[in-house]
Amino acid sequence: MKKAVCLLSGGLDSTTTVFYAKNKGYEIYALTFSYGQRHSKEVEQAEKVAKYLGVKEHKIININFLKELTKGVSALTDEKIEIPEERKIEDMEKNIPVTYVPFRNTIFLSIATSYAESINANSIFIGANSLDYSGYPDCRPEYFKAMEEVIKLGTKIGVTNEKEIKIEIPLLMKTKSEIIKLAKELNVPLGLTWSCYKGGKKACGKCDSCLLRLKGFKEAGIKDPIEYENK
Amino acid sequence: MKKAVCLLSGGLDSTTTVFYAKNKGYEIYALTFSYGQRHSKEVEQAEKVAKYLGVKEHKIININFLKELTKGVSALTDEKIEIPEERKIEDMEKNIPVTYVPFRNTIFLSIATSYAESINANSIFIGANSLDYSGYPDCRPEYFKAMEEVIKLGTKIGVTNEKEIKIEIPLLMKTKSEIIKLAKELNVPLGLTWSCYKGGKKACGKCDSCLLRLKGFKEAGIKDPIEYENK
Repeated sequence: MKKAVCLLSGGLDSTTTVFYAKNKGYEIYALTFSYGQRHSKEVEQAEKVAKYLGVKEHKIININFLKELTKGVSALTDEKIEIPEERKIEDMEKNIPVTYVPFRNTIFLSIATSYAESINANSIFIGANSLDYSGYPDCRPEYFKAMEEVIKLGTKIGVTNEKEIKIEIPLLMKTKSEIIKLAKELNVPLGLTWSCYKGGKKACGKCDSCLLRLKGFKEAGIKDPIEYENK
Repeated sequence: MKKAVCLLSGGLDSTTTVFYAKNKGYEIYALTFSYGQRHSKEVEQAEKVAKYLGVKEHKIININFLKELTKGVSALTDEKIEIPEERKIEDMEKNIPVTYVPFRNTIFLSIATSYAESINANSIFIGANSLDYSGYPDCRPEYFKAMEEVIKLGTKIGVTNEKEIKIEIPLLMKTKSEIIKLAKELNVPLGLTWSCYKGGKKACGKCDSCLLRLKGFKEAGIKDPIEYENK
């Protein structure tokens, strides 16, 4: 059975991606990264999703050092920085937002590659999306292409040419509403997914991530099953 | 003052590289990675080196998850796998040895890049060496070139083109004896450096790393100040 290492944050995109990989016949080795309180809600949801889907392995990787190294830089790792609220969707792509965590996807993908090479998996699935995204440089197609080259050259396969490890990004060119429709088709438990940048009991409905999610559900004509504050 | 993030394992090569960076006028932000018992001796030596040199910051980054992810694969992260002894130098480059830790340098460099971007450092120094090395794919010049492209595309600079983060590899094309001569010139405290793959009180003198070091000192005509077993 072919193996896939899947990055699973517990969000809508990564959850849909893991279901997609399972549907394609892969045995799932899920990795969830834990890096500070603000995201502990995501980790909980990721555990629920992994259990629901029935993955082969699910590992929670502690990279709390990221909080210290990126101190004062990202609102996702430093509670002192406020998460922007109620921005217009069209403004999100203009600048790199303060929720950008420096080089985060490369840290995720390098750890995933180490794991993939160790268990002989040829695929790494990531739920990145370059259409309805909020301006992160490490979500762009050209970034992933360059990263695949590093994987080719920096692993045993670069020397032996035995096999290759590919980065699979099924949602890369989809809009949020297309992702939600796909999630429906794949029977993703949308109520278990968590997109909000804040760690509240209910989603805030105001951060970039909530706004993109709400817009996507609206456009898809599907009701979002999770609860929002003040709604 | 220009800032450099320096990977410091406490070995001969990384220590010489950090001294080289300091000598070039950089303010040093050293990172040492801790990933399991076998390397705790290295971490101790790295702390001594950082103190001796007087760095601006020295952070020990816990990446113990690497032990679990690469279980059964690398002799450096799994004590059950024996470290090869008394291999011929010419045999070392023929195959990738069992001391290879899958994709380790990319994990190191991605964390270093996140730190560099956060503190506005434009240089990352790594003590990699592609001549007297023991066959690791992620020590080759073409690997580093590809990694620099990922850094360009995966960080803010990829979007804003404000500045670039460069990987500096001053020892890349040097032989071990040339490195030792350079270390002497830079007044590196060679007695504080630790190259042995084993965590003993004295260096084993038999693993690939000890053998390359011993050969280098012999060719440089310099006495190695550290103690070896049975010598």
